[in-house]
Amino acid sequence: MPASPTQKSLSGVFTPNMTPLDDRGEINEDELRRYVDWLIERGVHGLYPNGSTGEFTRFTAEERRRITRIICEQARGRVPVLAGAAEANIRETLRACEAYLEYGARAVAIVSPFYYRLSPGAVYEYFREIGRNSPIDVTLYNIPMFASPIDVPTVQRLAELPRIIGMKDSSGDIGQMMRMMAAVEPHRPDFSFLAGWEPTMLPMLLVGCTGGTHATSGIVPEFTRKLYELAASGNIAEARPLQMQLTELFDLVVYSANLPEGVRAAVELRGFQFGASRQPADPAQHVDRPRLSRIVHRLLEVASAERP
Amino acid sequence: MPASPTQKSLSGVFTPNMTPLDDRGEINEDELRRYVDWLIERGVHGLYPNGSTGEFTRFTAEERRRITRIICEQARGRVPVLAGAAEANIRETLRACEAYLEYGARAVAIVSPFYYRLSPGAVYEYFREIGRNSPIDVTLYNIPMFASPIDVPTVQRLAELPRIIGMKDSSGDIGQMMRMMAAVEPHRPDFSFLAGWEPTMLPMLLVGCTGGTHATSGIVPEFTRKLYELAASGNIAEARPLQMQLTELFDLVVYSANLPEGVRAAVELRGFQFGASRQPADPAQHVDRPRLSRIVHRLLEVASAERP
Amino acid sequence: MPASPTQKSLSGVFTPNMTPLDDRGEINEDELRRYVDWLIERGVHGLYPNGSTGEFTRFTAEERRRITRIICEQARGRVPVLAGAAEANIRETLRACEAYLEYGARAVAIVSPFYYRLSPGAVYEYFREIGRNSPIDVTLYNIPMFASPIDVPTVQRLAELPRIIGMKDSSGDIGQMMRMMAAVEPHRPDFSFLAGWEPTMLPMLLVGCTGGTHATSGIVPEFTRKLYELAASGNIAEARPLQMQLTELFDLVVYSANLPEGVRAAVELRGFQFGASRQPADPAQHVDRPRLSRIVHRLLEVASAERP
Amino acid sequence: MPASPTQKSLSGVFTPNMTPLDDRGEINEDELRRYVDWLIERGVHGLYPNGSTGEFTRFTAEERRRITRIICEQARGRVPVLAGAAEANIRETLRACEAYLEYGARAVAIVSPFYYRLSPGAVYEYFREIGRNSPIDVTLYNIPMFASPIDVPTVQRLAELPRIIGMKDSSGDIGQMMRMMAAVEPHRPDFSFLAGWEPTMLPMLLVGCTGGTHATSGIVPEFTRKLYELAASGNIAEARPLQMQLTELFDLVVYSANLPEGVRAAVELRGFQFGASRQPADPAQHVDRPRLSRIVHRLLEVASAERP
Repeated sequence: MPASPTQKSLSGVFTPNMTPLDDRGEINEDELRRYVDWLIERGVHGLYPNGSTGEFTRFTAEERRRITRIICEQARGRVPVLAGAAEANIRETLRACEAYLEYGARAVAIVSPFYYRLSPGAVYEYFREIGRNSPIDVTLYNIPMFASPIDVPTVQRLAELPRIIGMKDSSGDIGQMMRMMAAVEPHRPDFSFLAGWEPTMLPMLLVGCTGGTHATSGIVPEFTRKLYELAASGNIAEARPLQMQLTELFDLVVYSANLPEGVRAAVELRGFQFGASRQPADPAQHVDRPRLSRIVHRLLEVASAERP
Repeated sequence: MPASPTQKSLSGVFTPNMTPLDDRGEINEDELRRYVDWLIERGVHGLYPNGSTGEFTRFTAEERRRITRIICEQARGRVPVLAGAAEANIRETLRACEAYLEYGARAVAIVSPFYYRLSPGAVYEYFREIGRNSPIDVTLYNIPMFASPIDVPTVQRLAELPRIIGMKDSSGDIGQMMRMMAAVEPHRPDFSFLAGWEPTMLPMLLVGCTGGTHATSGIVPEFTRKLYELAASGNIAEARPLQMQLTELFDLVVYSANLPEGVRAAVELRGFQFGASRQPADPAQHVDRPRLSRIVHRLLEVASAERP
Repeated sequence: MPASPTQKSLSGVFTPNMTPLDDRGEINEDELRRYVDWLIERGVHGLYPNGSTGEFTRFTAEERRRITRIICEQARGRVPVLAGAAEANIRETLRACEAYLEYGARAVAIVSPFYYRLSPGAVYEYFREIGRNSPIDVTLYNIPMFASPIDVPTVQRLAELPRIIGMKDSSGDIGQMMRMMAAVEPHRPDFSFLAGWEPTMLPMLLVGCTGGTHATSGIVPEFTRKLYELAASGNIAEARPLQMQLTELFDLVVYSANLPEGVRAAVELRGFQFGASRQPADPAQHVDRPRLSRIVHRLLEVASAERP
Repeated sequence: MPASPTQKSLSGVFTPNMTPLDDRGEINEDELRRYVDWLIERGVHGLYPNGSTGEFTRFTAEERRRITRIICEQARGRVPVLAGAAEANIRETLRACEAYLEYGARAVAIVSPFYYRLSPGAVYEYFREIGRNSPIDVTLYNIPMFASPIDVPTVQRLAELPRIIGMKDSSGDIGQMMRMMAAVEPHRPDFSFLAGWEPTMLPMLLVGCTGGTHATSGIVPEFTRKLYELAASGNIAEARPLQMQLTELFDLVVYSANLPEGVRAAVELRGFQFGASRQPADPAQHVDRPRLSRIVHRLLEVASAERP
C-alpha cells in the first residue's frame, strides 16, 4: 500500500514559481512578494524557487540567493520552501545549501548535472558528495529532457543517505517512477516521490506520489489544489476530467511556447506584471492569449463551483 | 467518469500469444492448440495473434493466416480473438481482414505503417482507407518505438469511422493516452483504449483503459488476471504491489533479451516447447533462467494464495 | 591510401530504382523496362531494386521477385544489379538469394532486421547465417533510422565471411564509416563501402567509399554520374558546388515528402508515369513541383554544359 | 571552390584547453601557463578556453574570466585566443565579451542556449542581440548533443551581422555543415566554418572548413597539426590513415569516459598535473591508461617520423 502523505517528508503541490522582472530586467521584489502571498492565499502547499520554470539558469548565483531569501522571508513559515540549489559545482552548491538553510527553506532540490550527459556512476558520485555534506535535506531532481538522467539503481543507492529525503521526477514516466518506489520504499518509507509533469499528475498521485511541483499551480493554484485533493482522497471519477482540463492548459502554456514564456503570459492574466524574460522571445511562438484566457477562466469556474 | 468496461467494445487482458515452432522451424500446431486451451483455462480474456510478441514480421503472409485460423478454431468462441492483420499494403491487409472475419475473429489490430516513418497525415490516410473498407472491426495499434507514431489528432479523426472501435497503445505514455481519451470520448463513448506496456498497466486501467494486451499474460495469466480485476474494481492498495512484481517480470523478459526471447524462455518454464526463434539468438543476451523461475513462482503464489 | 575502385567488388552509383504502378496498383512492367533502359543510357553504374526508395516493404514476396527478374532481364548485363533480398526470415531471404542469383544479379543487399530493434549480437547472428549460406555475394545494408543499427565490431566480424563483400550505409555518418573502414580494410581490401545518403556523397567518396546508392540518380542520373566522376578523380573544387546542388534536390524530394513520394514526383518530371503509391499520400506533404522542376533543370544544365 | 584559409577570419586548429586544478580544487595558474607555452611550442594555431572540454560550466563566472585572462596573457599574441563567453544571460555574456576584448582575445565563441531546448526563433533572437552589441567578433557554437541546435536558416540570418564571423560545429554532421556553407558563403566569403568533432576532421577540412577546435590537439598537438596540414594541402592519401588514428585516440578519451576525464588522463601522460575534476569521477569509467599510452606514443612517432 502506498505510504500515506503524512509519513512522507514532503507532500502537496509545490509551485515552481517564476521570478518577476522590472523594466530594466532586474528582480521585481515587490511583485515577487505580492505573488508569494497570492499563491499561499490560494492554497498552494509549498513554494519552489530556482526550478526550470523559475529560469534558474538565467540568473546569476547572487540573484538565485536573493530570490530564495525573498521567498523564504515572505512565506514566513506559512508553507514550506523547497529551494533549487544547483550551482556551478559541488562546493558552490553546498554553499547555497548552507545559505538556504539559514533563510529557512525546508529542503533543497538539486537538478542532476546538466550540459554534459554524465554516466549513472558520475551522477551518483555527484549527489553522494552533496548528500554527505549538505546541512539541509536534499531532494533529487530528475528531468531527463534537460539534464543527465537519474536511473533506478542510482536513486536506490542515494536513498541510503538520510539527508536525501525524496525525488522529483519531471519525465512523466510512471513505469519508471514505480520502479523507483519499489526499489526505495522497503528501506525508506519516508522517502518522498514528487511528480513534475502535469499530464500525469493524477495517475502519479494514485500510484504513490505524495505531491508534485507543477508549473500550472502558479497560474490556477485553486484548480491544482482541488485536483490534488480529489486524487489524494482516491476520487478518480471526479479527478479525471480535471486532469484532462489541466493537461489542456499545460499543453498550451508549455508546448506552444519556449518554457516558461507561456507560464509568464498566463500569470499576467491573473493580474501580475512579470516583465520580459532575459531570453528574448521567439516571435513565431506566440501564445494564443484569447484561448489561454478561456481555459484559465473555465478552470477557475470548475475550481470554485465545485468546491465542497 | 471513465466509461465502464461494459460500455466498451473490448475489455480485459488479451494475450499477445507467441507461436511455437517445431524442430524444422515450422509452426507447431499441436503445441499452439494446447497453449490456447491452457491460456483460456487460466482466465485470459482474449487472444491476440500476430502481434509484436507473436513475431508477426518473421512469418510469411500465408503463415500469419494459418496462425490466426488455428487460434480462432481452438478458441471456439470461448474468448474473443483480436488478430493482427497488417500486411505489405492496404489491399493485402484488407484481404487478411476478410479472412480473419471468416475465421471468427472479434476484431483486427493494425499496427501503424513501419519501416518508413510516415507523417501523421499519411498515417491517417492509411487507416482511413482500411477503416472504410474493412469488413471487420479495427483497432489501431500504436507502438512508436517500432512504427510510425499515431498522434492525438489522428486518433480523433479516425474515431469518426464506426469500423474503428479502439486503439492499443504500447508507448506507456499515460499523458498521451489521456489526451486521446479526452479527444475521442465525447463522440465515441464505446471506443476502447487498451494498454500494451506492463509497467503502466495499473495506472492505465485506473484512468480509463478497459483492458490491454500484455505479453506477461502469456506467462502468468493467473497473475495478470488478478491484477486486472483489482485494478478494475479500484482496489489500488492491493493492486500496487502486484503491479511492481509484474514490472519486475516484464523487465527481465523484455529488457534483458531481444523481444520475444525472454517470453519464450518463460513460457517454457510453464511447460511448453516453443522451439527456437527464426531470428538467431544473441548469445550475449542470456536470460537469467534461475531468477526468471523464482519470479514466476512468486507471482503464481501471489495469484493463487490471495485468490478470494 | 584508400583502395582504388578497381580493387573493390562494387563501385559507382547504383540507382535505388522505384517501381512504376499502373492504374490498378499493379507493377507496370513496360514502364519499368523503359525506365531501366533510360537509366542505363544516362550512365548509372548499376541498378538497385527492392531498396527503401523502391518501397520493398509495400510489395509481396512474389512481387519483389518479379521486380528483380524484370530489372535483371532488362539490364541484360549492361550494368550490374544489386538486389534487395530481405524477406520475412532467414530461410525466405536465402530463397530470394537463390532466385536472384539465377536472374543474374551481381549481388544482394540485405537490410538489417527491422521493426524489432535487435542487439548487435543478434544482428551479427542474422547476417552470419545468411553469409554462410547465401549462394550469391551479400552486401550489408545499414540504415539506422529505419532498421537495427549495424555497428563497427559487427561489420568487422562479418567481413570474415568471404560471401559478404561490402556494406552500404545510409546514415550519412562519415566518422562511423571511417571507423568501419579502419576495422575492415586491413583484412579485406576488396570490401566495398557504399554511401547511401546524398548530402555526404562527395566526402564519403573522398575518404574511401567507391560508390553509393543514391535515390537522386533515378532523377538526374547525368548529374550524379558527373559528381561521382569529379569526386573519384579528386577534383574537389569542381565537385563541391555540385554536391551542394544535389543536396538541395535531395532535401526537396526526401525531406518535404514521405519517402519516396518526392522521388516519384521528380521521376515523372523526366517523362515517366509511375502511378500512385500503395501508401496513400498525405495531402499536407505537397511537393513543390515548380521548384522541383527548376532544380532538376538547373542540375541537367550543369551536367550537360560542363561535360568535358 | 572553398575559400582559401587566408580569406577566412579564423583558421587552423584551436585547442579547447582544459584548466588544471590544484589539490584544493583551485585553478593552478602556474601549470596553466606552462601548458599554454607547451601547446604553442608544439604548433597549435590557437587556444580556446571555456569550451566543453574546458569544463566551463563547472567554474564560476569570476573563474571563467580569470582563466581567459591568464591564457591571453600567456599567449602574448603568439597565437589567437578564441574565448568561450557564454554566461547566465545576454547581459552577463556581453560583459564577458567586453572583458575578453580587453584581455586581448581575438574573438569569442558563444554556445547556443543550453538546459532549455529553445526554438530556432529564440536561438536567433539570442545571438542577434549578442551580435548587435558585442564589442568583439563572435563565433556561434553549435553542439546539439548538449545545447539548443542552431539550424541552417538561423546561421544564414545571423551571418547578416558583421560581428558574427564564423561558426563552430561539434555535431560531426558534414551534410548539415555543407548546407550552412551553401547558405552563407555567397554573402559572407569571410565567414569561418570550424569543425569540432575529431572523427570528421579530415572530411570537414576537405569540403570547406578552415580549421577546428579539437580536444585531441591538447594531447598530441604535433599530430593534429600534421593532419591539418596534410588536409589543407589536399593530401588525402597521407591524411586518411592519420585521421583513423586520431579517431582511435578520440574514441578512447571521449567515448570511454565522461568528458573531459579521458582528456585529463591523456594530458597527464604528456607531463602535466591537472588535478581532479570538480565533478567526481565515475569509478566504472576507468580510462585504459596502458592503451592510451600506446596510442599517444604511436601518434607522436607518426608526427615526428614523417615530418618533412
